[in-house]
Amino acid sequence: MPYVNIKLTGGKEAPTPQQKAELIRGVTELLQRVLNKNPQTTMVIIDEVDTDNWGIGGESVTERRKQK
Amino acid sequence: MPYVNIKLTGGKEAPTPQQKAELIRGVTELLQRVLNKNPQTTMVIIDEVDTDNWGIGGESVTERRKQK
Amino acid sequence: MPYVNIKLTGGKEAPTPQQKAELIRGVTELLQRVLNKNPQTTMVIIDEVDTDNWGIGGESVTERRKQK
Amino acid sequence: MPYVNIKLTGGKEAPTPQQKAELIRGVTELLQRVLNKNPQTTMVIIDEVDTDNWGIGGESVTERRKQK
Amino acid sequence: MPYVNIKLTGGKEAPTPQQKAELIRGVTELLQRVLNKNPQTTMVIIDEVDTDNWGIGGESVTERRKQK
Amino acid sequence: MPYVNIKLTGGKEAPTPQQKAELIRGVTELLQRVLNKNPQTTMVIIDEVDTDNWGIGGESVTERRKQK
Repeated sequence: MPYVNIKLTGGKEAPTPQQKAELIRGVTELLQRVLNKNPQTTMVIIDEVDTDNWGIGGESVTERRKQK
Repeated sequence: MPYVNIKLTGGKEAPTPQQKAELIRGVTELLQRVLNKNPQTTMVIIDEVDTDNWGIGGESVTERRKQK
Repeated sequence: MPYVNIKLTGGKEAPTPQQKAELIRGVTELLQRVLNKNPQTTMVIIDEVDTDNWGIGGESVTERRKQK
Repeated sequence: MPYVNIKLTGGKEAPTPQQKAELIRGVTELLQRVLNKNPQTTMVIIDEVDTDNWGIGGESVTERRKQK
Repeated sequence: MPYVNIKLTGGKEAPTPQQKAELIRGVTELLQRVLNKNPQTTMVIIDEVDTDNWGIGGESVTERRKQK
Repeated sequence: MPYVNIKLTGGKEAPTPQQKAELIRGVTELLQRVLNKNPQTTMVIIDEVDTDNWGIGGESVTERRKQK
């Protein structure tokens, strides 16, 4: 019955549907392996966040990407 | 003053504006009826999630819909 | 398959287990009635928040309760 | 290491990238000033919510905006 | 830079610190393997939820556990 | 009408009620200054997270604190 929310950068950096499926499968298996949680009721939601809307170190990821 | 967040599948499965309004009204009334919470300060946010980004039973909802 | 998160004040203002059960049942029925969502996979999580940790109007709920 | 999530109305009311950058910088500085939190590991995520999907006082923000 | 939130039942069902560490390590490795995300900035937060506060199928997990 | 959620480490590292009040006031003022948001309807929720339950760099904050 666990609920998992994964937030990662979207847009050009967004994962493909295959990669998303791999994340969903992987985290569901992890919860089964470590805590014996039932995969049938494990819920996973992936949020793709625009790099303008994600900040770290006091600046947006958009700005950080430019500086590299 | 309660805060409610409702996540449901979007895209083709997204609710209409009328259905969203009904959810907002319904959950606000529920909190007033059960806990006497003030409707004026009850906040509700609805997130529509792409079926690729929602997993249950270790696979995405997109995959599950195909199998039916 | 909807996911609902309800945040409300805890401590002395916390709902009883019966009231929580009523919220869970009520919001699950609302999603079934309005959007025909399957109750078996509707997940509801209630968070009880300390009044020191909840702010509105720029001050904590603890402060607001004192002023009344 | 704090994590901050800011939800505000999007669409026509969405902040500009400059305003978002100002929010990210401002909240990161606030956490450093008040709690001495390391800005390098402070994470901020801004969610823009459609006015149809945001409810207060039992009705959507879209409806409230019309009434004014 | 991903952010992951895992919610699971707490109290008697709460994971041990070792199990939590295994979840944190496992999900961080998964994001590195699938999406090449930097583990150093991957943040994971685990929330333990009381069984009274978690609902599925229209009833609390506390109630469901009794029926078995 | 913005909603802000701040997650930070709790337990021995938890902020005092005064510090929490300062965070609530500060973030509410920031949203008013940058986006002209109405402070009366700005909601702030602070979550204090146990260091066992917070991971970064693939390990819990509890582990990281020991290594210093």
